[in-house]
Amino acid sequence: MQRTVDYKDGRVILIDQTRIPAELVTIELSDYESVAEAIKTMKVRGAPAIGVTGALGIVVAARHSSATDPKVLYEELEHAGNALKNTRPTAVNLFWGIDRMLDAAHAAVQAGSSVEDVVYALESLGELMLQEDEDVCRAIGKNGARLLPDKGNVLTHCNAGALACVAYGTALGVIRAAVEAGKQIHVYADETRPRLQGMKLTCFELVSDNIPVTVISDNMAGWFMRQGKIDCVVVGADRIASNGDVANKIGTYSVAVLAHHHKIPFYVAAPFSTIDLSLTSGDDIPIEERSHEEMTHIDGHRVAPIGVEVVNPSFDVTPAKYVNAIITEKGIIKPPYKKNLR
Amino acid sequence: MQRTVDYKDGRVILIDQTRIPAELVTIELSDYESVAEAIKTMKVRGAPAIGVTGALGIVVAARHSSATDPKVLYEELEHAGNALKNTRPTAVNLFWGIDRMLDAAHAAVQAGSSVEDVVYALESLGELMLQEDEDVCRAIGKNGARLLPDKGNVLTHCNAGALACVAYGTALGVIRAAVEAGKQIHVYADETRPRLQGMKLTCFELVSDNIPVTVISDNMAGWFMRQGKIDCVVVGADRIASNGDVANKIGTYSVAVLAHHHKIPFYVAAPFSTIDLSLTSGDDIPIEERSHEEMTHIDGHRVAPIGVEVVNPSFDVTPAKYVNAIITEKGIIKPPYKKNLR
Repeated sequence: MQRTVDYKDGRVILIDQTRIPAELVTIELSDYESVAEAIKTMKVRGAPAIGVTGALGIVVAARHSSATDPKVLYEELEHAGNALKNTRPTAVNLFWGIDRMLDAAHAAVQAGSSVEDVVYALESLGELMLQEDEDVCRAIGKNGARLLPDKGNVLTHCNAGALACVAYGTALGVIRAAVEAGKQIHVYADETRPRLQGMKLTCFELVSDNIPVTVISDNMAGWFMRQGKIDCVVVGADRIASNGDVANKIGTYSVAVLAHHHKIPFYVAAPFSTIDLSLTSGDDIPIEERSHEEMTHIDGHRVAPIGVEVVNPSFDVTPAKYVNAIITEKGIIKPPYKKNLR
Repeated sequence: MQRTVDYKDGRVILIDQTRIPAELVTIELSDYESVAEAIKTMKVRGAPAIGVTGALGIVVAARHSSATDPKVLYEELEHAGNALKNTRPTAVNLFWGIDRMLDAAHAAVQAGSSVEDVVYALESLGELMLQEDEDVCRAIGKNGARLLPDKGNVLTHCNAGALACVAYGTALGVIRAAVEAGKQIHVYADETRPRLQGMKLTCFELVSDNIPVTVISDNMAGWFMRQGKIDCVVVGADRIASNGDVANKIGTYSVAVLAHHHKIPFYVAAPFSTIDLSLTSGDDIPIEERSHEEMTHIDGHRVAPIGVEVVNPSFDVTPAKYVNAIITEKGIIKPPYKKNLR
């Protein structure tokens, strides 16, 4: 499959994830406002993917700037960075990707580079980040694969796959690497209401890769655990606090508690850039509240009665005590996280 | 609101629940085959409602029979009873309702009644069962209301409301009675995938009654519990074994485990006819597997990728140890259930 996020000649190229599984459509964006809008409307989503996309938003802002003074250019990029950061509050990778790009621009300007040279430097960094994200996912996969059974059933929630990254995926990267290593893995995918990323994206990816996958509604997970049908759980993360608390898609917390109750290992797979050492605990992670229409409508079709109240927190926080290991590109981190993450 | 199930002059009158919340449509059925089809396709659903509807299926079979010999009539009714029983396997109330009607027919025939008198006896019993179901729900409500906080948040799953009974409801009957007693109750309704009975039916009912209700996706329940936003859980039941194990809509088990983990009381509200003393434990309850289209399509619109495997168990079994009390019309039953249910 093509990269989920790519860059070519002044354009950010994205798979439009709101069209999957009905069709595989690519969009090309050449201004940062469109990139911000694509992040906001979840045409691109997944913490690693929006990290790189945010960074590439800065690259297109630089590439298409009419500034002739490097300092003016940098001011424009800071402005673009703020707009891009204001799209989604929970995933730390977004801020990390944008700041990495802004830091590079700042350094180049400080070093006296011309506008052209700054743009070149940012384009190069963009290419590097794309490649890095792929490499990181493959390393996460390789590290995590050994935690999976030689033959068994793995539950995942939402989509932490190729479609959440540049390619390969984090949680699904672990599953892919296990399958590549010859393990016989069958995946249960929580459909993940309200946006159904598990049903639509995870199942789409795994079916494309011929990895056996069965979709279940979110409320079935506990029942399947009780029946011994799930050997372990692997999910991604949008932000991990220094104590190991994990913010991830709404419903992750319930899955973690259910896994804990049934003594099933619960693993989080994420690049190191997901870890926010500035946060003491998950209590400090802002939780995005998304449009109520995501709940009341499915694919534009109203399912809710008129007059019902709606809430739609897009993420929850799983306390570290329910997390058996965090799988990163640098290795597997086990409790105590407060010590081992640093 | 009108009765969910009613009988008038040879016709079973049902609110078509597959049309809610878009519209409130009533259907009238005058042969048992249509009644069986309505149960199978969930135009009527909910254990108490299908119990009474199944019984009324026998009444219309009797009313429209051309038999002149009471024994021939009884054979026809047994045949109709088998067809009605074959619609859905999990709720015991269905078998209870049909057998009650068949037993009455059998007794009347044995006593030498004419065909006309048998039909009259069955119509009278049908009217009685309709009224009884309403009375039972009100008694359940009254008994259970005292378990609810004077002011607080109650979580419910699926629909155990007026739409699952003749009127008033079991779990929602408890909530209604608490509100009628002056308690300030706010309801969280799990949307209850795949068929969204919580979103579509429970919210519709409660909005109609001006009881404050907020819909959440099934995967949010744990997160709301963790935040202290849920004071207790009340659900219905499709079958209760003699040891207190409860079969109910898929997802009930997860909610029960999550409630247990957060030390939140978990209550089951059901008429005594839901208790199947012939079963030692919930392991013996057959779990209906429904059409995969319920998962892959929402309101006729495909949401799943082609090629994904699907499972769709419609119910799960919650072990008695997670159930703090069973609320019946005869009173509140607490553990040990093996002793106290008998």
